[in-house]
Amino acid sequence: MNELKVFTIQKNIHENNTEVAAETRKFLNERNTFLINIMSSPGSGKTTTLVSTIQRLKDAMAIGVMEADVDSDVDAKAVQEAGAKAIQLHTGGLCHLDATMTKQGIDELGVEELDLVFLENIGNLICPAGYDTGAMKNVAILSVPEGDDKPLKYPKIFGKVQVLIVSKIDALEHFDFNFELLEERVRKLNKDIIIFPLSAKTGEGMEAWTNWIKKQIDLRG
Amino acid sequence: MNELKVFTIQKNIHENNTEVAAETRKFLNERNTFLINIMSSPGSGKTTTLVSTIQRLKDAMAIGVMEADVDSDVDAKAVQEAGAKAIQLHTGGLCHLDATMTKQGIDELGVEELDLVFLENIGNLICPAGYDTGAMKNVAILSVPEGDDKPLKYPKIFGKVQVLIVSKIDALEHFDFNFELLEERVRKLNKDIIIFPLSAKTGEGMEAWTNWIKKQIDLRG
Repeated sequence: MNELKVFTIQKNIHENNTEVAAETRKFLNERNTFLINIMSSPGSGKTTTLVSTIQRLKDAMAIGVMEADVDSDVDAKAVQEAGAKAIQLHTGGLCHLDATMTKQGIDELGVEELDLVFLENIGNLICPAGYDTGAMKNVAILSVPEGDDKPLKYPKIFGKVQVLIVSKIDALEHFDFNFELLEERVRKLNKDIIIFPLSAKTGEGMEAWTNWIKKQIDLRG
Repeated sequence: MNELKVFTIQKNIHENNTEVAAETRKFLNERNTFLINIMSSPGSGKTTTLVSTIQRLKDAMAIGVMEADVDSDVDAKAVQEAGAKAIQLHTGGLCHLDATMTKQGIDELGVEELDLVFLENIGNLICPAGYDTGAMKNVAILSVPEGDDKPLKYPKIFGKVQVLIVSKIDALEHFDFNFELLEERVRKLNKDIIIFPLSAKTGEGMEAWTNWIKKQIDLRG
């Protein structure tokens, strides 16, 4: 296994985040690299979902992961073991990544030859929602144990993403979680959102999610 | 039931947060009001734990709750129904409360005649860890579904609090959660931390937690 790279990103000094994000998308499109930004609460299963996703897709495409965390490198090690090129990004206490910070991560990771890159954003439902990172698609993960009321409390993130993964559905019977109510609340904020209920543990629902990813990559030719 | 107050707090313009926090503690001590700051991820069970706590303590003392959220008032309604004097604080997108914002909430809630006030901080493991709110005690809640690795990833908050509640222990058998490993990781950051494993759903462990609260209130004479 390659040595794991841990990189401390610098705070954004660029004022025009939208402009940097657009430049990043252009840079990635020219290299045929598709960037997916994944956001959720701590402990909602971002890394577990990614590990299972990488295992299912790694034979079909070259995958990279940027793991953003305030501290530690446990997540980057896990995705590296699953078969992705990985880098750990440390934010020094900051609770989000903006476009400039993401671009630093992309440059450090090195995306030549990568078809797909995941940015695992900081575990947080508030700060990351405010920043375009340059990703082509934004995905939120909500785990069943967190509850079906989260769209009421964090409308911005649920309104912004193109995809919502409802994770840990194997735990549905142990929690008061009304899937229909969740969907109703989310669609009020975001009528075109694509929802994938899944369990990385049992594998249920994983194929629909990975098929969606394959379709994104195919579409780019 | 009283009408529920929703208050949009103003951004801190006071530079010396430590000083304002000290003034708040003095103000509360003079009124025999004990303030507990509760921090956790979204969906870890802050409100459910508070509702169960209020039900068990409301006959022994007068309780108030400040519910801080980016949006919605569902939590404030729930604690009000449980028997607490409640106010909803909206932060306008900010991901933490500092001492000045907390003091605004205290003034709006009105703490005369309240023995105990809970501040339910914004659902977030990063931002709230950096600010003294003026509370006498800081409590973190980590739910079993979030995983035992969280102290590795969010060391600041686990190092800062006096109490850790491990919630949703009724779900222990459904998740890979090693309680001994969690405790070892937390004590490395914070050797004197008091840990209460509990389930607000089944009631297991609730008595140890509420007894600890009673002891704090008694100590203040």
